[in-house]
Amino acid sequence: MRAAVFHAPQDIRISTVPDPRLIEPTDAIVRITHACICGSDLWFYRGIQKFQPGWRTGHEWMGIVEDVGAEVRTVKKGDRVIAPFAYSDGTCEYCQAGLQTACVHGGGWGGAGDMGGQAEAIRTPYADGTLVAVPESASNDPKLLAALLPLTDVLSTGHHAAVRARVQPGSTVAVIGDGAVGLCGVLAAKRLGAERIIILGHQPARLAIAKQFGATDIVAERGAEAIAHVNDLTNGGAASVMECVGTEDSLDAATQIVRPGAFIGFVGVPHGVKLGLRNIFSKNAWLSGGPAPVRAYIPELMTDVLAGKLDATPVFDLRTNLDGVPDGYAAMDSRQAIKAMIQF
Amino acid sequence: MRAAVFHAPQDIRISTVPDPRLIEPTDAIVRITHACICGSDLWFYRGIQKFQPGWRTGHEWMGIVEDVGAEVRTVKKGDRVIAPFAYSDGTCEYCQAGLQTACVHGGGWGGAGDMGGQAEAIRTPYADGTLVAVPESASNDPKLLAALLPLTDVLSTGHHAAVRARVQPGSTVAVIGDGAVGLCGVLAAKRLGAERIIILGHQPARLAIAKQFGATDIVAERGAEAIAHVNDLTNGGAASVMECVGTEDSLDAATQIVRPGAFIGFVGVPHGVKLGLRNIFSKNAWLSGGPAPVRAYIPELMTDVLAGKLDATPVFDLRTNLDGVPDGYAAMDSRQAIKAMIQF
Repeated sequence: MRAAVFHAPQDIRISTVPDPRLIEPTDAIVRITHACICGSDLWFYRGIQKFQPGWRTGHEWMGIVEDVGAEVRTVKKGDRVIAPFAYSDGTCEYCQAGLQTACVHGGGWGGAGDMGGQAEAIRTPYADGTLVAVPESASNDPKLLAALLPLTDVLSTGHHAAVRARVQPGSTVAVIGDGAVGLCGVLAAKRLGAERIIILGHQPARLAIAKQFGATDIVAERGAEAIAHVNDLTNGGAASVMECVGTEDSLDAATQIVRPGAFIGFVGVPHGVKLGLRNIFSKNAWLSGGPAPVRAYIPELMTDVLAGKLDATPVFDLRTNLDGVPDGYAAMDSRQAIKAMIQF
Repeated sequence: MRAAVFHAPQDIRISTVPDPRLIEPTDAIVRITHACICGSDLWFYRGIQKFQPGWRTGHEWMGIVEDVGAEVRTVKKGDRVIAPFAYSDGTCEYCQAGLQTACVHGGGWGGAGDMGGQAEAIRTPYADGTLVAVPESASNDPKLLAALLPLTDVLSTGHHAAVRARVQPGSTVAVIGDGAVGLCGVLAAKRLGAERIIILGHQPARLAIAKQFGATDIVAERGAEAIAHVNDLTNGGAASVMECVGTEDSLDAATQIVRPGAFIGFVGVPHGVKLGLRNIFSKNAWLSGGPAPVRAYIPELMTDVLAGKLDATPVFDLRTNLDGVPDGYAAMDSRQAIKAMIQF
């Protein structure tokens, strides 16, 4: 089969690699029909995250089951399935608690091994604990399938930020970041009933999508001016702050715009961040976040997608195929594209 | 009257100062009967926190109301009262939400001005929003009064760490620090029904009090060994971590011993701490804390003290009077005393 393979920073190639095959009786083999390039893929693309030549890429994908091991019970050959960005056994303490990203047998796609999601097919460990079957009725509707694709990561991650920031009906929310996750965060906050959604960002095209997704206020200043603007709009801070960037500056800004006693949900991977705790302490605020337990969120979010009430596809401003993956990385790296969707 | 006054680091003196008097109609004047020296007082005593010569000291105190302004409704002359370590108006958004430490008109005792709690008397702003009256029946029982004194700060602060760490019946809890707050944290966790309480500390006399307060396990190692020990005892981390020190090392340790998806409550003032977020992120943990909203907690905790079910007085291993305050600071500074109680 053909798969995207990392060669060096700024150098992803499509290569022919061995077909995946069942190893464990709990495995499934899935022919991939849709995938994405993630903002977090840019970490290795830019050489910041260590990646070895020959490693596979891609962790956001959907497809059709081609084969299953003898112990797989919940999906069968021919099923249309969505995969979370991490696999999980579905049975451990953490999976049972809905925190599948802490699964004791869990792991991610891409990297060493042969399980990359930017490829024609993939082996899925713990198929029952990992994959979610799409109802038959929706499994051949191109528009609905595209709208389900963001559940694999970006929309579920935006939802996680909203959940951890305790967004609820009537909430005033500040979303830091106008990347794909931040935009999906706006959509997730709106879905949870937020009344006022302030987005902090700088890119007009992205902020236009934020408006379409439900943002009520745009704060386009930077640094101290942006913080003052949010604190002015909210009379002293937002009850929910969704941090969707992951830098020290953006996390520190989150602590400066959160209301006393209120909640910061952070989902941007904090590479090397050391956060001053002065504001969190003086305000008695809450900080929590991490990799979204996508497997826990897919069923609930899928219901709304299938009902036509939830559609994050405007973040896919580049649609390509497997051969277009290298150019998709380049376009996202240079910010010419928000997020690339790959169709097979 | 006489009051403790800061002259220079390591130099606290008892001086004669003007008697306090009513200024606002919402004020009360209280004759102080009991006070404490706090571990956080050592920050200015050691010259780490900026303090000016002539500033008053002390923020933990109880007493008897001597006079009230025309608008005070809930306390009257002769009432025995407990004061939280911060005053609050009782009416603003934050006070109504039980976060009196964020009161828009609030402030603390000690420092500039004339409102120090290590003194014979004190002016209390917003008496209705600040003071809590002790029931008449208990107001002359020396043992009960001593047991109420820790509600002013140290026990309420330990309780806050437990609340923010989400301690509940059956919880497994790790308490970092064997100072007075950590010990009170153990007591608070026990009161909330924790089943297993692991304390991390090094001082045998203090750890003996921890055992008396309900600690089930003692981890006396330091650094990586202490962390490995807790993670071994808990099979991967405690569901509630109460951080009662406030240093970068202890906060980082908290992130290493918290269970995935679980809660760190931190109440040690984090002077200059910058916390790496890698563990919190990878575990999807929760971090929250700050100055305890003591005013919100006193009524609930007082009920248990008056019923004889809650007694933190073992932390008072030094009892002295106003003249003994300078020596009390020295004894706590050198760790000869855990906490000094001052009786008038």
